[in-house]
Amino acid sequence: MTANKLDNLRIIAFDADDTLWVNEPYFRESEERFCTLLEDYLPHHAVNQALFKTEMDNLRLYGYGIKGFMLSMIETILTVTEGTAPLSMVEKAIEIGKEMLDKPIELLAGVEEVLQQLQPHYQLVIATKGDLLDQERKLEKSGLASYFHHVEIMSEKKEADYQRLLHRLNCSPEHFLMIGNTLKSDVLPVISLNARAIHIPFHITWQHETISHTIEDTRFFSVQSIQEILPYLLPTKN
Amino acid sequence: MTANKLDNLRIIAFDADDTLWVNEPYFRESEERFCTLLEDYLPHHAVNQALFKTEMDNLRLYGYGIKGFMLSMIETILTVTEGTAPLSMVEKAIEIGKEMLDKPIELLAGVEEVLQQLQPHYQLVIATKGDLLDQERKLEKSGLASYFHHVEIMSEKKEADYQRLLHRLNCSPEHFLMIGNTLKSDVLPVISLNARAIHIPFHITWQHETISHTIEDTRFFSVQSIQEILPYLLPTKN
Repeated sequence: MTANKLDNLRIIAFDADDTLWVNEPYFRESEERFCTLLEDYLPHHAVNQALFKTEMDNLRLYGYGIKGFMLSMIETILTVTEGTAPLSMVEKAIEIGKEMLDKPIELLAGVEEVLQQLQPHYQLVIATKGDLLDQERKLEKSGLASYFHHVEIMSEKKEADYQRLLHRLNCSPEHFLMIGNTLKSDVLPVISLNARAIHIPFHITWQHETISHTIEDTRFFSVQSIQEILPYLLPTKN
Repeated sequence: MTANKLDNLRIIAFDADDTLWVNEPYFRESEERFCTLLEDYLPHHAVNQALFKTEMDNLRLYGYGIKGFMLSMIETILTVTEGTAPLSMVEKAIEIGKEMLDKPIELLAGVEEVLQQLQPHYQLVIATKGDLLDQERKLEKSGLASYFHHVEIMSEKKEADYQRLLHRLNCSPEHFLMIGNTLKSDVLPVISLNARAIHIPFHITWQHETISHTIEDTRFFSVQSIQEILPYLLPTKN
């Protein structure tokens, strides 16, 4: 694809987890530790399935984020062991969760340079799902806060949620670009609103965020890394 | 106190929990159930103390809200029983928490009428602490969402947090009034910014939110119920 400029943009919104910094691998690592904890009861893949089912059942009540994940781990201990596990297993699950909450932030390659180059030309925004305090803390630890004009932490990223965000930013869809790693949350709802999106796949996606079909739409395209968005967005030097 | 009009206001922000609807009594009720659960190990007041200590230790990591409360209950079971409790106790703590998350909303007396009367004259805003999804859900269940121009769910309510809110609302302090039930979170940080506040005490306050001194300041006063704010805020009929 040749770098046809994306014209007429005023606001560029970035997803945060796995777009600006590493996140999903920490969940995978924690899931793995959790499966090991329960391996006397069930093989890893079966524990993983039970955990995912509990997470999905609880999503309506808990929403996204590490605290909900912790509560679902604990509930999975109850179901998988049929209430026979020692209490120390619950303690270990809490430890796994607390370590996740205290993890340092690992920026993805090129992120800071890209934000630096875009900031003079656009209003940059974060639009991320998850737990309020946890996302705020990650942004603070990332050292990136000063690049952003606005930070929106959303309980969901569906069409109506983006509509509210655009309203709040006083921005019409044609002036809005969303950049993120998941088609389901960062691309589909955005292009349905007639705004544009760039998809930067990350090597791991949570199964709740995957979609099974491919999308053909002129309002979005994919690139392999964040640096590749610059030719589409920076003014051409003459 | 005679009802001297509060002049020059543009935005009125309301705290939500225990200002618009009942909240703290549900926590108290849950704490009581939790203490009963552990009464074979320790008397109620000692369990309560242990729980509060755990909550305070975890506040930095978990922030405010029911999910953090649930995780702290579970951790308190571990410490109070020194790891000897049956796993069914953890199950009960999760039940207590899930019931809290699913509680219906009980509006405080006069709330809807007051919002109805103020809405034509001011921009009404919610400024509440807590868990994102949980607070959004409560607002939706309350049926009050349409009265509010903006909803801000904050991880903290300190001076800097209100400063960010004012900035976001594009409002200078002299045009801003905050209404809420706690002096610590709804009054003190607001009057330090030179904005105004009205305090409507609620019969129960979480011990983390209490302050030990009294405040004398012309930028705030207390009333006994939400209806009493109207004479200060509605235009006089001639």
